[in-house]
Amino acid sequence: MKVLFAAPDHNWSKWAPVLQKTCPEIELTRDGDPAEIEAIIYAPGGEIEDLSPYVNARLVQSLWAGVERIVTNPTLTQPLARMVDPGLTEGMAEYCTGWAMRAHLGMDIYAQDGVWRNSVTPPLARDRNVTVLGMGELGRAVAAMLRGIGFRVTGWSASGRPVEGIETLGGGDLDIALARAEILVTLLPDTPQTRGLMDARRLATLPRGAWLINPGRGTLLDDQALLASLDRGHLGHAVLDVFHQEPLPKDHPFWAHPRVTVTPHIAAETRPETGAVVVAENLRRAARGQTLLHLVDRTRGY
Amino acid sequence: MKVLFAAPDHNWSKWAPVLQKTCPEIELTRDGDPAEIEAIIYAPGGEIEDLSPYVNARLVQSLWAGVERIVTNPTLTQPLARMVDPGLTEGMAEYCTGWAMRAHLGMDIYAQDGVWRNSVTPPLARDRNVTVLGMGELGRAVAAMLRGIGFRVTGWSASGRPVEGIETLGGGDLDIALARAEILVTLLPDTPQTRGLMDARRLATLPRGAWLINPGRGTLLDDQALLASLDRGHLGHAVLDVFHQEPLPKDHPFWAHPRVTVTPHIAAETRPETGAVVVAENLRRAARGQTLLHLVDRTRGY
Repeated sequence: MKVLFAAPDHNWSKWAPVLQKTCPEIELTRDGDPAEIEAIIYAPGGEIEDLSPYVNARLVQSLWAGVERIVTNPTLTQPLARMVDPGLTEGMAEYCTGWAMRAHLGMDIYAQDGVWRNSVTPPLARDRNVTVLGMGELGRAVAAMLRGIGFRVTGWSASGRPVEGIETLGGGDLDIALARAEILVTLLPDTPQTRGLMDARRLATLPRGAWLINPGRGTLLDDQALLASLDRGHLGHAVLDVFHQEPLPKDHPFWAHPRVTVTPHIAAETRPETGAVVVAENLRRAARGQTLLHLVDRTRGY
Repeated sequence: MKVLFAAPDHNWSKWAPVLQKTCPEIELTRDGDPAEIEAIIYAPGGEIEDLSPYVNARLVQSLWAGVERIVTNPTLTQPLARMVDPGLTEGMAEYCTGWAMRAHLGMDIYAQDGVWRNSVTPPLARDRNVTVLGMGELGRAVAAMLRGIGFRVTGWSASGRPVEGIETLGGGDLDIALARAEILVTLLPDTPQTRGLMDARRLATLPRGAWLINPGRGTLLDDQALLASLDRGHLGHAVLDVFHQEPLPKDHPFWAHPRVTVTPHIAAETRPETGAVVVAENLRRAARGQTLLHLVDRTRGY
């Protein structure tokens, strides 16, 4: 099976050896006759963006979980699969849990200044409300890890589809989910419905002092409304891993704000060791004409 | 039942209302005829330290989990019970987990300085070794919460008694437990055997870059050896909640050290709401002459 690797150089050096080892029956190539290509492995930023010559490709496998930069490509006619990497999912749950614990324990009140600040006892996790927006693969994993620690977790998704062990609200109950969120974790995909969702009104719906943790998509936030909410002391702190523009420009006010923590799009790292197993399985399915895993619904956009 | 409250004023205001509500049949007093006292609730630092007049007391119930300041009191002849507060246990597990996550995720490499540091991906928790020294009530709860997140957890206790779901080493295998500890959590009681246990040699046994989290007892550490290990770049960071002297003196080098985080003895907060339930049960048992809970073994000292 001939597989085109349509992704930037740094992806090639990271993925090619692991893919070859995990899936020795494939022939991984970076060019060659388009008509001979049976599947495409894709990440944004590489040289190949015109997919129309690959008429015999039965699968475009994204190396990214977020597919907004490929799903809108008008030359894409082949079935598109998202990356669903168990390593990425675990890493995301750990990122959100770690930052939620930092918020929960009030770690940032302790400074190395000789002052013994022992008057504040944080509540127990069982008395702390955390809301997770987005109950897909990632949101469910985050909610489950937070629940395991003891937090009172509310989930919210557009569909409101029930999730085992997590109270999950849907659609119109977004304000209820936000009003509870002492800690809010946002894991929504980038779609026309979610762009700018966290605007001034919805930020004001959060309880005073709330922490916002956004490892999902930068487009979810109205940056100016977020800064205004922090500045008037409503939102307590924002931990942001994703931005409208990445890397976040050096002059963006998020960098200098004392109640913003910027992390450099690290929450959703795909690990080649675990991701290659999933890619290999999907390539085998494509070769055999079997049902593909993790296909993107293009009408939803994710 | 007449119960003497032998503890400082701030304990009285915090505990008395909750105790009276939880256990309305007791008469809580701060003085009165010693011969009439049937049980004593004790915390260090109050006015009453001579327990010899309380000849009819069937229980001394500590408000603290650590009993080193009462177990050595030569006037103590009554049975002594430690505080085992489910709220304290949960809070301890949350403290240790939160700081372990901070270490694990490498949160402190991110500064608000405009630099997009996205080259480091931390390992997943399942590839991270955490060692917990002390497998009592608290150590077991901490180990279980860390295990729940996915960490590879090794326990160590003097007895080496097996703990469900956690590989637990004993006695002479301390060096093996330390050599694995990318993150070390120390929850040992203060006894002659543990004082100064974490000396220069044992700190050097930890892997380079290890984090030490000590919410147990300050006497466990050789402070100078710890500082020396940090200064020569062996130990990565120390999160210290307990100290030889508390509050930590303003001129102690821990305050100024960039790789030490001082928290003000907050990890083991007893919550009156949950602790009073345990005290009430033990007082009822004392009143009925039944087996008491959480008795201290004075030969072990805990």
